[in-house]
Amino acid sequence: MVDPANTVGIPVNPTPLLRDELDIVIPTIRNLDFLEMWRPFLQPYHLIIVQDGDPTKKIHVPEGYDYELYNRNDINRILGPKASCISFKDSACRCFGYMVSKKKYIFTIDDDCFVAKDPSGKAVNALEQHIKNLLCPSTPLFFNTLYDPYREGADFVRGYPFSLREGVSTAVSHGLWLNIPDYDAPTQLVKPKERNARYVDAVMTIPKGTLFPMCGMNLAFDRDLIGPAMYFGLMGDGQPIGRYDDMWAGWCIKVICDHLGLGVKTGLPYIYHSKASNPFVNLKKEYKGIFWQEDIIPFFQNVKLSKEATTVQECYIELSKMVKEKLSSLDPYFDKLADAMVTWIEAWDELNPPAAAATNGKA
Amino acid sequence: MVDPANTVGIPVNPTPLLRDELDIVIPTIRNLDFLEMWRPFLQPYHLIIVQDGDPTKKIHVPEGYDYELYNRNDINRILGPKASCISFKDSACRCFGYMVSKKKYIFTIDDDCFVAKDPSGKAVNALEQHIKNLLCPSTPLFFNTLYDPYREGADFVRGYPFSLREGVSTAVSHGLWLNIPDYDAPTQLVKPKERNARYVDAVMTIPKGTLFPMCGMNLAFDRDLIGPAMYFGLMGDGQPIGRYDDMWAGWCIKVICDHLGLGVKTGLPYIYHSKASNPFVNLKKEYKGIFWQEDIIPFFQNVKLSKEATTVQECYIELSKMVKEKLSSLDPYFDKLADAMVTWIEAWDELNPPAAAATNGKA
Repeated sequence: MVDPANTVGIPVNPTPLLRDELDIVIPTIRNLDFLEMWRPFLQPYHLIIVQDGDPTKKIHVPEGYDYELYNRNDINRILGPKASCISFKDSACRCFGYMVSKKKYIFTIDDDCFVAKDPSGKAVNALEQHIKNLLCPSTPLFFNTLYDPYREGADFVRGYPFSLREGVSTAVSHGLWLNIPDYDAPTQLVKPKERNARYVDAVMTIPKGTLFPMCGMNLAFDRDLIGPAMYFGLMGDGQPIGRYDDMWAGWCIKVICDHLGLGVKTGLPYIYHSKASNPFVNLKKEYKGIFWQEDIIPFFQNVKLSKEATTVQECYIELSKMVKEKLSSLDPYFDKLADAMVTWIEAWDELNPPAAAATNGKA
Repeated sequence: MVDPANTVGIPVNPTPLLRDELDIVIPTIRNLDFLEMWRPFLQPYHLIIVQDGDPTKKIHVPEGYDYELYNRNDINRILGPKASCISFKDSACRCFGYMVSKKKYIFTIDDDCFVAKDPSGKAVNALEQHIKNLLCPSTPLFFNTLYDPYREGADFVRGYPFSLREGVSTAVSHGLWLNIPDYDAPTQLVKPKERNARYVDAVMTIPKGTLFPMCGMNLAFDRDLIGPAMYFGLMGDGQPIGRYDDMWAGWCIKVICDHLGLGVKTGLPYIYHSKASNPFVNLKKEYKGIFWQEDIIPFFQNVKLSKEATTVQECYIELSKMVKEKLSSLDPYFDKLADAMVTWIEAWDELNPPAAAATNGKA
């Protein structure tokens, strides 16, 4: 079946999955020409564009896309004083899009990410794979050596406990990148020519109790399950750190998913990451993070949320208190970040009024 | 460079890695014709063949292979009463080979495993990949989303703590299987035609704190680092259970590796697994294991070894006490197994006299 409007003959998925239940969030400072290449896969979906930097600049969105666009003025107007929790001059601003969405699922992608090809040369429908990942369970409690046991042609191997074969709900799907790998500035400097050409045909659950470096470039999640924890922190303008927005969110969502019994997957889909960012600029943004993460990661590895924390909001507020208590000694920045985490939850709940019984996290 | 003896033109690795530091252990009840196909890769190495079943049967080993062969009479003669810890009529007997080896590394392979081909059609030198896996570090403390960071063309991604980039020593390399996947009897019965055709081009570390189903079909390890924990338990003749030998060893080695700060890898290399075993026979062997593993796995997930346990032997003896204490209520079998674990360590230390200061595990 071919879309009759599709005159260039690119195969189009006839029934876009979750068309009315998913928003695509894109942070940007430039025209979104990259969406041309994504048209066969993304055009049916609604976009939430978070315009970073100068609000007077006009961002061009390719014709035919349905979108809403927020610039800094919009964010300030909508959130009022709580807008302080949304970063400026940093792609961390994207999390504002998560907050204003009314859909169950979010796919977020950077504007320098193009359609990858699988080893057979076929264009990868990244969103479709993310949706598959989110709609089928995760297996964080025991490792399956043949990777995703729910995938066609695979299953649980001998010795996998039957009681765990139903898995748990998947909250996050973390996709990967061909071409320019997501390296830190020191690695970029040391290996300026390294390109990722290895297509690993696997999706896997990151085991319970294991942290991972979550990259925000090609990421999808279930807002209902984990949305309020997908805060990308304080980065960029006026902050001592950048390029740790997604990492921060990744550490937070992982400990909360582990606590709430939710799954996080990584692997497929790949996108094609087109251009390496400037390693010298990156180094300036990152260097405190590189130093701080040596303390932050052990902190997160030791986080124990209380039994009373049963919603994402409750978990997140509890986490913010621990950040204040345990990380403020590292730098006053963490004191500010802990406050911003609380502001974020307040703003989230304001825009997403909790249902009757669940008025948590607004203490 | 081509081996002059190699008249059929199969490319031969000119300098076999670790030729004098590695033994290949093969449990079998039949002629080892499968070794013909492996000749280009395995012939340079020494074989330890553990003959299961009728000791009077003559096992044929293809010409040109250097080997030692042990049948049940040999095991009884060498171990005396301690031979009771070595299973009979079950491939679990292979662990006797680990014990009599004097080499640092072991590769063990089943006699129904053939040379796999990678997606380009090239024959996979499984042993070479296992050696690579064992000789380069593992990263159990933090997940790297681009898989093995030490592999050519890969590295640690942004957000990976620099303090953890040296990794830890790798103790175990667990390889996978194309064609017949390693399924339990119920899955075999439900999906008799399922074949594994997916070649996942990745090696990864199984994170600390995560258990996995270790299959003994295509496995390599560092005897010096973990050998004494590679006990395949009591299976087969006179035992209420079979096909859990490698699983048992896998649970034991994983908790001990985690305790001692050692790494366990899984993924490449693949072998081609030629024939599915009879699911009805398997079900009979497995059914108690399928039931018991629901308790055994939580037991292993909660194992905490003491700080005093600093050698594999000490860890293993401690573990045997916990098995006796916690699992005997499940079935008297575990009481017997716990005793056999102690016997195994005694036998190991007898055949592998610990160096001066380290006379552990012989209490």
